[in-house]
Amino acid sequence: MITLYDLAGAEDDRRFSPYCWRAKMALKHKGLEFETVPWRFTEKDAIAFSGSKTVPVIRDGSTVVADSWNIAVYLDQAYPSRPGLMDGAAMVALTDFFQQWTIRSPQLALFKVILLDIFERIHEKDKAYFRESREKRFGMRLEEWAGDPKQALAAFRGALEPVRPVLVQNRFVSGHGPGYADYVLLGMFQWARCVSPTRLLEPDDPVYAWRERVLDLFDGYARAAKGYPVWA
Amino acid sequence: MITLYDLAGAEDDRRFSPYCWRAKMALKHKGLEFETVPWRFTEKDAIAFSGSKTVPVIRDGSTVVADSWNIAVYLDQAYPSRPGLMDGAAMVALTDFFQQWTIRSPQLALFKVILLDIFERIHEKDKAYFRESREKRFGMRLEEWAGDPKQALAAFRGALEPVRPVLVQNRFVSGHGPGYADYVLLGMFQWARCVSPTRLLEPDDPVYAWRERVLDLFDGYARAAKGYPVWA
Repeated sequence: MITLYDLAGAEDDRRFSPYCWRAKMALKHKGLEFETVPWRFTEKDAIAFSGSKTVPVIRDGSTVVADSWNIAVYLDQAYPSRPGLMDGAAMVALTDFFQQWTIRSPQLALFKVILLDIFERIHEKDKAYFRESREKRFGMRLEEWAGDPKQALAAFRGALEPVRPVLVQNRFVSGHGPGYADYVLLGMFQWARCVSPTRLLEPDDPVYAWRERVLDLFDGYARAAKGYPVWA
Repeated sequence: MITLYDLAGAEDDRRFSPYCWRAKMALKHKGLEFETVPWRFTEKDAIAFSGSKTVPVIRDGSTVVADSWNIAVYLDQAYPSRPGLMDGAAMVALTDFFQQWTIRSPQLALFKVILLDIFERIHEKDKAYFRESREKRFGMRLEEWAGDPKQALAAFRGALEPVRPVLVQNRFVSGHGPGYADYVLLGMFQWARCVSPTRLLEPDDPVYAWRERVLDLFDGYARAAKGYPVWA
């Protein structure tokens, strides 16, 4: 049984980290049993054994792996006979590009949309840490960085442009079936859905139909997460 | 022998289309013999047989294929025993994402950097067509859209951010060896190098070292193209 340290909000069952969602979907894809341990931003001691200050962290027997990308690569290496997240060096490199883009483009744009929702949902003991660390990164107050919600939403939708033609041609970012790139993008949407009522996509958006397909995987595992519903 | 209609400037041997470069590198990758026919923007009649108004267009026996992406997909399907540009549906989808991103992000940013160099280099008979069609697209004069060269160059370098960590970890965008994604990115750089003396990359940029590797492929085929040198 694999243990996953999973970021939680004030309520234990609201698990909103996009990176932990990547790890959970990757574990599901591999068909591996796992249990999650709720973790808060300020509980650095609880994961000190991993050498990391952030989650996801997994413990698999005597092996400890931190960082969502490292976890994906580890799972494919440690369990080669199970379905691959990324089959071969070309898919690893192209998927890495996809996640580098996701972090810098739509996920950053989405952060502006949901930042204040996240702040509201996190544990009281995490609030000072969250405000201080993020305001240092942004160089301004949270409220100021978030800016105008309508503009932020429009920027997020615009940032998704390059993925739309791909999802018109393919059922998944990874082609015929889901792969790690799909979990990268889904992680971003779960991050929002767990904390924010904002309707991110119009139903006629090809990304909307793709999201439905990924939410249906593994008996609706991601859809069942505590969060706001996906609006029709 | 495959025939490729290849965009040319005022001089026949300055072949600057990023999409034609994709096709040429794809043909080289497959190890297929081909000859190029110089073509100008206004020579619509010469490629009317293809149903397309733009190049690249290839004729392979009785088969005609227009559009760089279609050509790549065709070559892998028609010549499956030769080295693959994209092996499998996952790589096709992820590479399609890569090219959708390239077009919208770094290539669009680079267009501002080299637009006036392109205009200077194209055939006299193409100038009115080029100015009119592009000014219609931009909604302003070419000179106005190009804007400040220093700003445009900084924006281009910034747009390459997501590919840098991938090229630190991998020799090619497609992993251990070059694939179609590499030719997409190289096509963009060749577009610039054929018409513009602007130094696009600093030598310590991981993209610079990658470009050297791709320029070395196929006995330095792309490096030998008529254009400005790659500065050390």
